[in-house]
Order: sequence, then structure tokens, then C-alpha cells
Amino acid sequence: MKDLLEIDGARLWRSLEDMARVGATPRGGVRRLALDDDDRRGRDLFAQWCRDAGMTVSVDAIGNLFARRDGADAQAAPVLIGSHLDTQPEGGRFDGVYGVLAALELVRTLNDAGVVTGKPLEIVSWTNEEGARFAPAMLGSAVFTGALPLDAALAAQDADGVTLGAALDACGYRGTRTTGGAVDAYFEAHIEQGPVLEANGTTIGVVTGGQAIRWLDVTVAGMAAHAGTTPMPYRKDAYFASAQIAAELERIVAGYAPRGLATIGQVGIRNASRNTIAGDVTFTVDLRHHDDAQVDAMERDLRDACARIAAARGVQVAVDLCWRSPATPFDDDCVGLVAQAAARFGYTNERIVSGAGHDAILLARRFPTAMVFIPCVDGLSHNEAEDALPDDVTRGANVLLHAVLARAGVASVAAGVAAAPAAQDA
Amino acid sequence: MKDLLEIDGARLWRSLEDMARVGATPRGGVRRLALDDDDRRGRDLFAQWCRDAGMTVSVDAIGNLFARRDGADAQAAPVLIGSHLDTQPEGGRFDGVYGVLAALELVRTLNDAGVVTGKPLEIVSWTNEEGARFAPAMLGSAVFTGALPLDAALAAQDADGVTLGAALDACGYRGTRTTGGAVDAYFEAHIEQGPVLEANGTTIGVVTGGQAIRWLDVTVAGMAAHAGTTPMPYRKDAYFASAQIAAELERIVAGYAPRGLATIGQVGIRNASRNTIAGDVTFTVDLRHHDDAQVDAMERDLRDACARIAAARGVQVAVDLCWRSPATPFDDDCVGLVAQAAARFGYTNERIVSGAGHDAILLARRFPTAMVFIPCVDGLSHNEAEDALPDDVTRGANVLLHAVLARAGVASVAAGVAAAPAAQDA
Repeated sequence: MKDLLEIDGARLWRSLEDMARVGATPRGGVRRLALDDDDRRGRDLFAQWCRDAGMTVSVDAIGNLFARRDGADAQAAPVLIGSHLDTQPEGGRFDGVYGVLAALELVRTLNDAGVVTGKPLEIVSWTNEEGARFAPAMLGSAVFTGALPLDAALAAQDADGVTLGAALDACGYRGTRTTGGAVDAYFEAHIEQGPVLEANGTTIGVVTGGQAIRWLDVTVAGMAAHAGTTPMPYRKDAYFASAQIAAELERIVAGYAPRGLATIGQVGIRNASRNTIAGDVTFTVDLRHHDDAQVDAMERDLRDACARIAAARGVQVAVDLCWRSPATPFDDDCVGLVAQAAARFGYTNERIVSGAGHDAILLARRFPTAMVFIPCVDGLSHNEAEDALPDDVTRGANVLLHAVLARAGVASVAAGVAAAPAAQDA
Repeated sequence: MKDLLEIDGARLWRSLEDMARVGATPRGGVRRLALDDDDRRGRDLFAQWCRDAGMTVSVDAIGNLFARRDGADAQAAPVLIGSHLDTQPEGGRFDGVYGVLAALELVRTLNDAGVVTGKPLEIVSWTNEEGARFAPAMLGSAVFTGALPLDAALAAQDADGVTLGAALDACGYRGTRTTGGAVDAYFEAHIEQGPVLEANGTTIGVVTGGQAIRWLDVTVAGMAAHAGTTPMPYRKDAYFASAQIAAELERIVAGYAPRGLATIGQVGIRNASRNTIAGDVTFTVDLRHHDDAQVDAMERDLRDACARIAAARGVQVAVDLCWRSPATPFDDDCVGLVAQAAARFGYTNERIVSGAGHDAILLARRFPTAMVFIPCVDGLSHNEAEDALPDDVTRGANVLLHAVLARAGVASVAAGVAAAPAAQDA
């Protein structure tokens, strides 16, 4: 173990603490909405740290912030490492910023060790990952990978009608670097934002990809009527129909355990009144599974159930597709490097699919990609109480370091450095 | 049949049409919110009609409007006949106004026939029956019967903060008559506001009382979490729990068929988001049955189900009593007079319990009371499309006439009148 190059956990933790003071909220969280004044201050601080670490900072046309550390091979495409600095309105101190600052710590560690990589390294902080100020989420990486045209992204408006383009100008982060470009591989470290690693007592989540997501809108049309004067057999109660559909959905998803997920996050009765039978109900359905075909099957089962319930109750049920995102497997080689790095340190680790959206999922559709997850306390995220343990923070960065080194290659190491950089597999 | 005194159906229909023009809405409905300018115009028109019919108009301290037709016995307590002239914001042309104008037509008919009743008759239009402008509903009859103190009623505020007292002054209907007083009996004609009479092909509903009503608020506390990162077994999904309670409630109420009624009219997820598991859900429950003990039992079953579901899912479920109104049986004698009047005309009739609230239900807790229901088209009410058939309107008023005559007694009939007023049972 002691032969392996390790990052400086205390230094990384201090950087996380320093960055958490930018946009700090009274209850211990962080609020840096994309391109607002606190996000600008966070970017400025991060860019200064990168320059202090000898890196070259550049910004592209959508505000993605890059910091380059040259490698021995000037022609090689860079290994990209990053995440995002923007937060939810009541966000935490780790979501996104951990991946960015773990990348910075990785570079500081290489600097200290006098390591020159073969391929260049570029740290990236993506613009508007959260989607809390501008829609869609993961906007910067979407433009970078060509999933969203630059013009459309620049025209996105916040709740006050400010365009993203204007916000970039206002904070000085509309850069001149061309969006996109060659990428050798992309690595992102992130808190899990779920309870699995913590529950299993696992330190490192070796992320194998992003799951399929499908959003549906269900509308149930019955008949509004007086709650006191309408005998039960005369009713076409849209809410009882909706509740039956919900119960059926829960039964359906149990048939896709353990990987199927179903959530009804929003429900509304039109012209709702305590003593009026619901005439029209709408609710949302969020379906997820690692496997596209299984999401298809869950959706089919749900549609069948809706049709049966509609016929039995004499109500109309419409199921409208709202959004679909296919399952996105990560690159086997990159995932393998993450697993090997964890194993080399002897960290407990398990393969896990990312339940949330990440920039890495868009990157993975174009470039070899992998992610490193660490546990977060109580699985909590998008919350001011979001937390992670210092040891896990350190270990995740160590895994990131060695996965990146294995991909980028080590060209040379300064004399007198005791710890070995990422050796090839013994 | 032709021996029986009958009201003038065409005249009653014209009065209904004339009154429907006061506050008429573009889609054929009526909007006379309690004590607003249109309600004032409606009251003025009705009061003038009453004076034209030789009656004496008075107004009490809560704005209830009375029109008196003396009987032979000046000392007798009056037989009260009425309903209300105020409407829902998008109300219909029959709800309430039918009972008031049927009473007026009854008096006009007695005038034409030269009938002097034994007891005096008083028509009443109660203030703010709908509760659409001021809460609670049935406010005028609540003050009259002593269920609500006058001061509390006068202090009720509308959505703009106008007190009912100020509204009475503004429209000139704060009267000097003392609220309350002796009542021999109370009769009210009303559209059913439900589908039963129409479905059964019945002309007259002989109302035997008001059902018990219980309002509950159910709160389910689970755990909000990310819809993508939280495996199903880790969830405490407050909405799936709520849907199961709803499904269970529907099953429970089926065990109280045909008289048990259950409605979930309002539901809300706190901080609802499409990709967030519901952490907190609240919904309303409206339980009704003819029999108080059966509502008690339904509530008990619901509470048991909530406790079971809470324990099985690891969520908290709270069931709070919001309002209870006991079952209110009408007076056997008065109900019998309605049934006899219907039978005398040969009208199809059935006993029915009022599902909705009515002034008559408050009156029944103090005085002998009965109601006459007529069908409404498609069971529709509280709706601009509310409608009733002219023949039913006429027949309901005929039944009202003869029930009232039987209660008030006939002291004398002018010579030369062919049709017989309410003969005692042959």
C-alpha cells in the first residue's frame, strides 16, 4: 500500500471547505446557481487555484472552464477529469465540487511527486449541470458533446428571463475556446447521492453507466360530482382510479426488482374541493432501470394496467411520453481502471449504476468514460445537510488519481520521490 | 286529480326565468354571491313580488328575508317555507331559488283560490346558504336556529376581508326583526343535486333527513429522496402509501353499500417534483352515511387501515378529525305530509336522504321539518348547466302546496272556487 502515490486528503478537505464558503447558506449548505455572482466567485477561486498549480485556464463559448496540465505527448488528446461547481438552490458541499476539486488535488499531487503524464490532463468544470437556474440540466456538457446546439443553450432563460448568454457575459465567463474537441477519456468522481454504498459498507462505487429514464404524464378523466349526493355506483371518481393505477404501478415495479424504479412525484386534482368527487387527475411517472428493454416492459405493463382500469371504471386514462433517456453503459476499459485502482488500495468496492444524471453520462455517448462514487451520509443529496466522510473523500480521490494515471500513462517521475505513481498491473 | 288545487306551472316557470336574469352568466348560469349587488337585486325583486302578492316583508338581523301571509289564527306560530336566493360563483338557475319561488307560487295560488289558512305562512330566503362568499355555509339558518351566534356570523369575512355585517349594510339588508322565533314547521323544496331520482324515473323525492358527514385530514410522512438513486426497498414513499390508503378506503366503503360514501377530494405532495420521491402527502376524506354509527365504523376501519399501512411501510400516518355533522332525521309527520301530497297527485315518489347540506337540516334540529326533492337533469348542480324539467318543477310545487296546506290547515275558501284545497285524508 505504501508504495502507491496518494493524494493529500487534508489539503483536498481544506479546499472543499474553502469552496463551501463561497455561497454558503445559514444551514451549512451552498447556493451557487449557475453563472450567478457566487458561481462566478467560485469559478474565479478555482481558476486561481489551477493557475497556482501551474495549469493553463481556458473557457469555451458555453462557459465550460478548463485547466490544462501538459503531458509528454503534446499531440495526444487530453484525459478530461471534472464535474461541476454550480449547486442546487439549497445544495450541499460535495455535489459536483468534489469531482472538480478531487481533480485539482490529483494535479497538485502529481506536481508534488514530479510526475509527467504521457497524455495531457484537463480538468473541466461544466456549466449549469444542476439545471436549477437554466434548463436543461447538464447544459455545458450537452453543448460540448454536440447533444445540444450552442445557440439553443445560449438562448436558455432563467426564471427572470435572463438568457444564459447574457449571464455568461455578465459574469465574464463567455470564453473564446471552441466548444467540443478531442477527448482521450473522461473521469468524474462524485458522491453517490443514494444510500447503497453506505448501506453495504462499501467505500468505492465503480460506476458502470447511467440507467435508462422514462418520464410519463398520466391523465385520468372521470366525472366531477357532489360528494354527498352521488351514490358510489354512479361515480366516475378520477382519484380512486388514479390511486388504483398507483397501487398497480407499485406492484408492477416489484416484478422488476431490484433494478426497476418507479416514482409518482407530482399529482393534482383539477378544481379540487373537499366535497367534490375528482373529475380530472394528472400525475407524473418516473421509470428507471439499468436496461432499456426493461423500462420498455415496465411502461408496457403500466399502459396495460391503465387500459384495464379505465375500462373497468368507465374513465379515460391517457399516458403521454414526456422524456426518455436511454441507458448509457460506460467504457469497459475505463471502468476497469477504476476497479483496478480501488483494488490496488484494497478499498472495498462494488459495481453500481448511476441513478442520477451526470455530465459523465453525456460524455459517455461520445468518449470512453467512467465515474468513481463515494458514499454520502444517509444517502442525502440536493440538501444543505449533504455530507461525506473525510476518509471516503480521500479514497475516492486516490482511485481517481490512479485510474487517470493508468489512462494517461506516466512519462517520467522526478528523482527522489518515494511513492510510486500508478504502476501498470503487477 | 282535477279536484285538487294546483299551482300555475307556467307562472312559476316565468318567475324562475325572470329571477335567472338577475346575475345571469354567459353560459346560462347565475352568479348571485351572498349580499353582493346581484343578490341585492334578486332580493329586491323577490320582496316586490311578495308585496305584490299581499304579503308583509321583514328582514332579520342576519339578513334572512321573510314574507308573511296571515292565517285565521293570529296567535299560531307560522309554517315556514323557503330556501335561498344566493348561488355558487358559477351556479345554476334552480339551486335554492326553486324553493323560494315555489313558496311564492304557493301563496299566489292560495290568493287566486281565496284560501285562508289556519296558521300563518311565512316564506323565507336564508342568507348565505351556499357559503361561496362567507363561511360557513347555511349561515342565515344557523343564526336563526341558534347554532351560530349572531356576532360570529356578522364577523365572517369574504375573500376581500369584507365582513358579513358590512355587506348587509352595504346592500341594505341588515334588518330589525329579531333572529329566531317560534316556528310551527319548516318545508323546503329543492332540486335533488344528485342522479338518483332521474335514474329511477321518480318525480318526487320524499326527503327523510340529512345524512351524517365527517371530514378527515390524512397526513402521510415518509422520506423525500432522489427518484433515480434510491432503490425501492430503501424508500418510504409517502405517495404510494397514500394511494394504498385510498385503495383501502374504496374497499372499506364498498362494505357499507349502498349508503356509505367516501371521497378524496384534495391531495397534495409537499415540495412535489417529478424526480423526487414524495416525502409528505396530505389528503382529505369525506365520509357520509345515513347512520351515525355507520360513519363511526367507516372512520374506525379507515384508521385501522392507516395504522396497518403505516406499520408495514415504516411511514407515519396521522388522521385528524376536521368536521362532523350528525345524521339529522326529519319530522315523521311532516315527511308523511309530503308523501301523502305526492300520493294524492299520483306522482311517482320515493324516500330519499339528502346527500347535500340544506337550511332544512339546521331547521330540523329545532323544528318539525321536511323537504321535497325534484330530479335535476343528469344529477348536475353547482354548475351553470344545472337544469330541471318544467313538469317536475310544477309537480314539486304542487306537493309543497299540499303538504303546507295540510300542516297549516284551511280556515276558509272563497266562494266559486272549483278546485279543492288540501282535503284531509279521505
